[in-house]
Amino acid sequence: MATYREAGVNLESAEAAMSRIAPHIAATQTGGMVGRIGAFGGFFEVPQGFRRPILVSSVDGVGTKVKVAVRAKRHHTIGEDLVNHCVNDIAVCGATPLFFLDYFAAGTLDPGVFESVISGVARGCKAHGMPLIGGETAEMPDLYAPGEYDLAGTVVGIVEHDDILDGSRVAEGDVLIGLPSSGLHTNGYTLARYASFKGARAYSIDDKPPLLKGRTVGEELLQVHRSYLVPIRALCEAGLVHAFAHVTGGGIEGNTRRVVSSPLDLSVRYEAWTRPSVFDFIQRAAEVPEEDMRNTFNLGIGLVALVPPRNLNRAQALLSQCGERPVTIGSVHRHSTS
Amino acid sequence: MATYREAGVNLESAEAAMSRIAPHIAATQTGGMVGRIGAFGGFFEVPQGFRRPILVSSVDGVGTKVKVAVRAKRHHTIGEDLVNHCVNDIAVCGATPLFFLDYFAAGTLDPGVFESVISGVARGCKAHGMPLIGGETAEMPDLYAPGEYDLAGTVVGIVEHDDILDGSRVAEGDVLIGLPSSGLHTNGYTLARYASFKGARAYSIDDKPPLLKGRTVGEELLQVHRSYLVPIRALCEAGLVHAFAHVTGGGIEGNTRRVVSSPLDLSVRYEAWTRPSVFDFIQRAAEVPEEDMRNTFNLGIGLVALVPPRNLNRAQALLSQCGERPVTIGSVHRHSTS
Repeated sequence: MATYREAGVNLESAEAAMSRIAPHIAATQTGGMVGRIGAFGGFFEVPQGFRRPILVSSVDGVGTKVKVAVRAKRHHTIGEDLVNHCVNDIAVCGATPLFFLDYFAAGTLDPGVFESVISGVARGCKAHGMPLIGGETAEMPDLYAPGEYDLAGTVVGIVEHDDILDGSRVAEGDVLIGLPSSGLHTNGYTLARYASFKGARAYSIDDKPPLLKGRTVGEELLQVHRSYLVPIRALCEAGLVHAFAHVTGGGIEGNTRRVVSSPLDLSVRYEAWTRPSVFDFIQRAAEVPEEDMRNTFNLGIGLVALVPPRNLNRAQALLSQCGERPVTIGSVHRHSTS
Repeated sequence: MATYREAGVNLESAEAAMSRIAPHIAATQTGGMVGRIGAFGGFFEVPQGFRRPILVSSVDGVGTKVKVAVRAKRHHTIGEDLVNHCVNDIAVCGATPLFFLDYFAAGTLDPGVFESVISGVARGCKAHGMPLIGGETAEMPDLYAPGEYDLAGTVVGIVEHDDILDGSRVAEGDVLIGLPSSGLHTNGYTLARYASFKGARAYSIDDKPPLLKGRTVGEELLQVHRSYLVPIRALCEAGLVHAFAHVTGGGIEGNTRRVVSSPLDLSVRYEAWTRPSVFDFIQRAAEVPEEDMRNTFNLGIGLVALVPPRNLNRAQALLSQCGERPVTIGSVHRHSTS
C-alpha cells in the first residue's frame, strides 16, 4: 500500500516549512499589496502617476552557486543573490521593482534549509521595498539528489515609457563607467567550482589559499551578488546616462554589447582596474585561458554605465556620493570595418 | 587547463538552442509588448481602461511530470501544462493573463529537447494571447542528471480592483460546480509514478493496462493540463460566480477551502461524478488509500466554481454553451460545531 508520503512527498513537513517562512514573507509586505497570502495568485496594485506605465520583468536563477551553498552548509544568503540579480536586470532598463515571486525545488524539503533560503529571499525583497508576493515550493524526489535544491525567481517592476533604457540612446563616444562587483555574483560557478574543487590542487570549502588573503574558498564564492539599484536610480533621475549593462554570464563585453548595436562597437581596457584576487585564484587553480575568464566572469566589474562624455564628471561625482568607486573602463566607437 | 566548456558549460550549444527557440517566442508576440527580445528585462505596457488595475501573478512548476516526459521522450506538451497551470491560478482570482516568463534548467542543454519544451510553452502562451516575454535557461551540470530538466514559469495578469475574486463573496448555500479535468493535470506525479512504475506490477511507459482502455501509461500521464480561462471568463463576465478554486496539490477539498473560510465549510459528494479510469488505475496499482487519493489528485474535477443557488441554472447553461460538462459536486454550509 502506498501513501503520498511513502512515495516520497511529506505534506506535513511541507506544512511545517510553510509556517516557518510565513513571518519572513509577512516582513516584506508593503503598501501596494492587495488581498492576502494563500490566495491562488498574488495581488499588487499598479502604482498611480504614470502617463504610460510599462511593466518590466525578469526571471533568473543563481546557477550552481546553490551547489556551493550546499557544500558550505550556508543557505541564508543565496536568496539575496537571487533577488539582487533579478532587480539589477530590470533596474538597468530604467525600472523600479514592484514585487517578487520565487521558485524553490528540492528532492526532500528540509524545513531548516528552506527557511534559511527563503529568509534570504525575503531580506533581499525587504531591502528593495518590495513584497514577496508569491512562491512555489516543489518537493521532487528523484529529480534532485538528497540535500540539493534549485532556486529561481521573477521580479516585476515599472518604468515610464519615455524613461525606458534599452540601448537606443547609446552614441559614439559614450564612456563606459564600471562599478565594482562584490565577487563572482551568480555567474561562472560551474567553472569556479571546477577550478576550486577539481583543479590540480583540490581545495576544500574551508581552505584558505594564499591568494584569498585569509578568506576561505566558501566565503569568497558565497559573497552576495550586490544590488546596483541605488546608483542606477541616482544616474537615471539625474538624466546622466544613456544605458546600463548588468554583467552576468557572457562577461563585461558580452553584456555591454546587449545595449550597443551596429554600427557602434565598444572597447574595454582590462588594465584599467585591479582584478579582485578571487579571479586570479580561479584562473591559476585551473589554468583558465584569459578569453574564457573574460567571457565567463565579471572580473570585478558588475555594472557598466554608458555615459556621454559631457556628463562624465557629474556622473562620477554622483556615484561617489552614493558610496561607489566608479572606474572608467572603456568607450563606444564606430565599428571598424578594416 | 580548464575552459568553461571543459568544466561542463557549452555556450555554443546554448547559442544554437536559443536560435532554435527564437521563432517560437516571436510567434507569441502581441500588442502590449514594447522593446525587443534580448534586453535585460521584458517590457509590457499596462493596458488602458482600468479604474484601479491590480496585477495578479503566480509562479509554478510542473512537478515530476517532467520525469514522465523524459521517460516517454515526449517533451512538446510539458510547456503547455506549465502555462495552463499558471493561467488557471490567476484566472480563478478574476484576472486575465498579460504575459509569461519561463525558467528551464538542465544538466546539459539538449537543443532538440529544449526547443520541444519551449515550443510547448510558446503554444500555451499563444493560445491565451499573451507573449512569452522573458526566460532563463540554465545549464547546471551535476545538479541535474544527464537527460533530466526542471521547468517553472510565472504569469502576470490584470484585474479591475472591484472584480477581484478572493473568496470574500462566498456565502452559505453556494453550490460547488465542478468542471472536468483532462487527467492528472500537474499534481500527484510522485505518487502516480510510484504506482505506475514501482508498484506491484511495474508497468513500462508504453504498456496498455486494461483499466486504461487502450491508452498507454505514458499517454495517460502526459495528458495536457487544460486551461479553464474561457469558462472562467464567461462566468465572471456574466456576474454569476462567487469564487473559483483551481484543483491542484491538496485535491478538491483542500483547494476549495482556500476560498471558503470559517464559519463556512463545504462538503463534496464524491459519488456525484464518474472518476476517470486513470485514477482507478493508480489507486489499484499501489493500493492507495482513498484519503490519499482525495488529498493528492483532482479525481476528474480540475476546477470548482462556487455559485449562489439563484444563479445555478444560468451558470450551468452558460458553461454548456462553452462546451463544458458541469457537475454539481457539493455545497457551502455553516461549519458544524457539534
